[in-house]
Amino acid sequence: MAVSQPSVELESAVSLQDFPPLRRGITEIFPEIISSENPDENLGQRLLTTNRPLRVKFGIDPTASDIHLGHSIPIRKLRAFQDAGHIAVLIIGDFTARIGDPTGKSEVRRQLTPEDVQKNAQTYLEQLRPILDFDTPGRLEIRYNSEWLSQLDLAKILELLGTMTVGQMLAKEGFALRFEKESPIYLHEFLYPLMQGYDSVAVEADIEIGGTDQKFNLAVGRDLQRHFGQKPQFGLLMPILIGTDGVQKMSKSLGNYVALSEDPLTMYSKLEKVQDNLLNQYFELLTNLPLDQLPENPRDKQKLLGLEIASQFHGKEAALEAQKASLTLVQGDAKTAEAVPEFSLAEIQFPAKLFYILGASKLCKSSSEARREIQGGSVKLDGDRISEVDIIFNSIDELKGKVLQVGKKKFIRLID
Amino acid sequence: MAVSQPSVELESAVSLQDFPPLRRGITEIFPEIISSENPDENLGQRLLTTNRPLRVKFGIDPTASDIHLGHSIPIRKLRAFQDAGHIAVLIIGDFTARIGDPTGKSEVRRQLTPEDVQKNAQTYLEQLRPILDFDTPGRLEIRYNSEWLSQLDLAKILELLGTMTVGQMLAKEGFALRFEKESPIYLHEFLYPLMQGYDSVAVEADIEIGGTDQKFNLAVGRDLQRHFGQKPQFGLLMPILIGTDGVQKMSKSLGNYVALSEDPLTMYSKLEKVQDNLLNQYFELLTNLPLDQLPENPRDKQKLLGLEIASQFHGKEAALEAQKASLTLVQGDAKTAEAVPEFSLAEIQFPAKLFYILGASKLCKSSSEARREIQGGSVKLDGDRISEVDIIFNSIDELKGKVLQVGKKKFIRLID
Repeated sequence: MAVSQPSVELESAVSLQDFPPLRRGITEIFPEIISSENPDENLGQRLLTTNRPLRVKFGIDPTASDIHLGHSIPIRKLRAFQDAGHIAVLIIGDFTARIGDPTGKSEVRRQLTPEDVQKNAQTYLEQLRPILDFDTPGRLEIRYNSEWLSQLDLAKILELLGTMTVGQMLAKEGFALRFEKESPIYLHEFLYPLMQGYDSVAVEADIEIGGTDQKFNLAVGRDLQRHFGQKPQFGLLMPILIGTDGVQKMSKSLGNYVALSEDPLTMYSKLEKVQDNLLNQYFELLTNLPLDQLPENPRDKQKLLGLEIASQFHGKEAALEAQKASLTLVQGDAKTAEAVPEFSLAEIQFPAKLFYILGASKLCKSSSEARREIQGGSVKLDGDRISEVDIIFNSIDELKGKVLQVGKKKFIRLID
Repeated sequence: MAVSQPSVELESAVSLQDFPPLRRGITEIFPEIISSENPDENLGQRLLTTNRPLRVKFGIDPTASDIHLGHSIPIRKLRAFQDAGHIAVLIIGDFTARIGDPTGKSEVRRQLTPEDVQKNAQTYLEQLRPILDFDTPGRLEIRYNSEWLSQLDLAKILELLGTMTVGQMLAKEGFALRFEKESPIYLHEFLYPLMQGYDSVAVEADIEIGGTDQKFNLAVGRDLQRHFGQKPQFGLLMPILIGTDGVQKMSKSLGNYVALSEDPLTMYSKLEKVQDNLLNQYFELLTNLPLDQLPENPRDKQKLLGLEIASQFHGKEAALEAQKASLTLVQGDAKTAEAVPEFSLAEIQFPAKLFYILGASKLCKSSSEARREIQGGSVKLDGDRISEVDIIFNSIDELKGKVLQVGKKKFIRLID
């Protein structure tokens, strides 16, 4: 009697779980499982059976050059693939940066000169040097998307647009909401996901890495590759990093970031204060340390995090020095917190300007000297440099317990 | 005491009514009146005050070469502008015809070879010779839109798309209905109105002529011209001609058409049968005759219409001959209807093939001779050439009273 066979092959299928360094920290892989859409393999199988290095795409936007730890996450994933013998294909989005938003409707898509783009891209790449393998031959391909996008003519663009319907595009998060609210969506906005998708066609990507907010765009890449007769890429989504405030996503404008270009001390000082609930995610996404061998004590974890990440960007020695300097800074030369002179904020009327507090506490001789010191960059609060001359604190709670510092030798601990 | 002035200027404004040959038959001019959108002038004023010939655009689609009286309406309007000293700018849509629909999603937009396009365009233009002024220097400009459309790059296309919102595009008749019914609208379809609109920019049109179904596209042209710093064109909408059946719009596929390439007799014979209720519109749109001086008798009107239009395309002499031949044909050599031999269809079993009737009536010696005669183009029914060998008539009512003719000399009147 014939019975239908259980799909043994599927159950015993290789998955990306068999490649721990590649799997680490990923939020979603699609398609992850064998499905009717993708009957032949999953990413694990493709990794196991491929007889050539896979091409792993990541696109960077050279409109800004300053990048932070959040940006390093997909780059670290690229590195993991490089280490496994694959090719990191870094796409510099110079085309879009150079044309900006030709309609002038987007503040975000400013138009840059070719020189600006080139400079930003170089600075960007410089900052990736500590993370990405630039040196092993054949492991890194850097491509500028103007190479193919500037060649597109109207016939090809009609073809690209013809792969999608208005309904599909309006289903995209962001568009859907705006359409519902009847806020205008300009037609050219529909082209951006298709341009990003066409990058995948141009470089024949096997895998594209992106943040979880990129799922739609990565899926468009799959569709376009299929349309042009290529095997569609796997989409590999990484989490968006929460900033050092523990609340919002890491962002330069929110001030809750650690920039890749920061000096070892600043980097260490910020990271050794990361909140307990974020520590595991930071270790998972920003280091290669085995997660089951981390110290249990939160304070030790914080220090290890600071040391480890500062080491990545500045080397072990500089990181250890930063750790030492941080102890000195916070605890003073006497190496005890108690040795730092205290200053009571009880007399200060809030909201209060920092330069006023600097004067009142005698760290500076006058408010105007204090302003100059801030401007000169020598004022720090708990190790974070303050560069905004007119910064205002609204209540005593924002300051109490913190160490205020001018230059290398003058400290006070603010108390209530 | 100050009172608000009535807008005297507006009331006394010149309008296109002051230019009767230009005004004739137009359904809508936009903007027709002075409005906040168009504070300076209306078309009448522009015509009156212009110190250069205006550029009057009309676009033709060279995917088909066979054109009928419906197509002649905007061309006749172009001619009226030529006669008033302006420039007819005829756009041959060769770009779209050559790329077709690169997504393969439209049956309508077949891809043609450059040779096909060139041939169709030539045939098309040949057929316009009797209507349009090809000879007076400076009155006609023929432009192929590949001249500018093939030069568009992605940056420019982003700019074009950026002039409109999804909401505006979806408000277009056709799109609106499909969107509501959730039938897919492919993104590239949004580009076609913009391409047509960009043609207006490229040729710096002052006026664009189109059918009433073209209002949206002509308005897009206005928007794009404004966007590129040009004075926006006036849109001038002409009615869609009802076919000789008096019901549906004239169309080759519906068989209710008079082709511009038809011989004088066929043309005359079709037109002298146009229904009473259509006559005035046909005179208005297809002739220059003064409408208040038409004969009152409908039969005389029909004959005049046939004569007048056949004259336009074949000259007065050939038209008069056609009129004579038509009388002969319908009434026989004796000039009375009774002189035409009659054939009773009583014995014929319906549905019946025409070649069988031709044999049975002895107009042809056999069914196979009848088939050859049809194929050879010498069989006519009430003056209309029949070219479909296997044409079937379903009932006696479709034939009774009509004259069946083979060659120039053999006639019978079909009776029941």
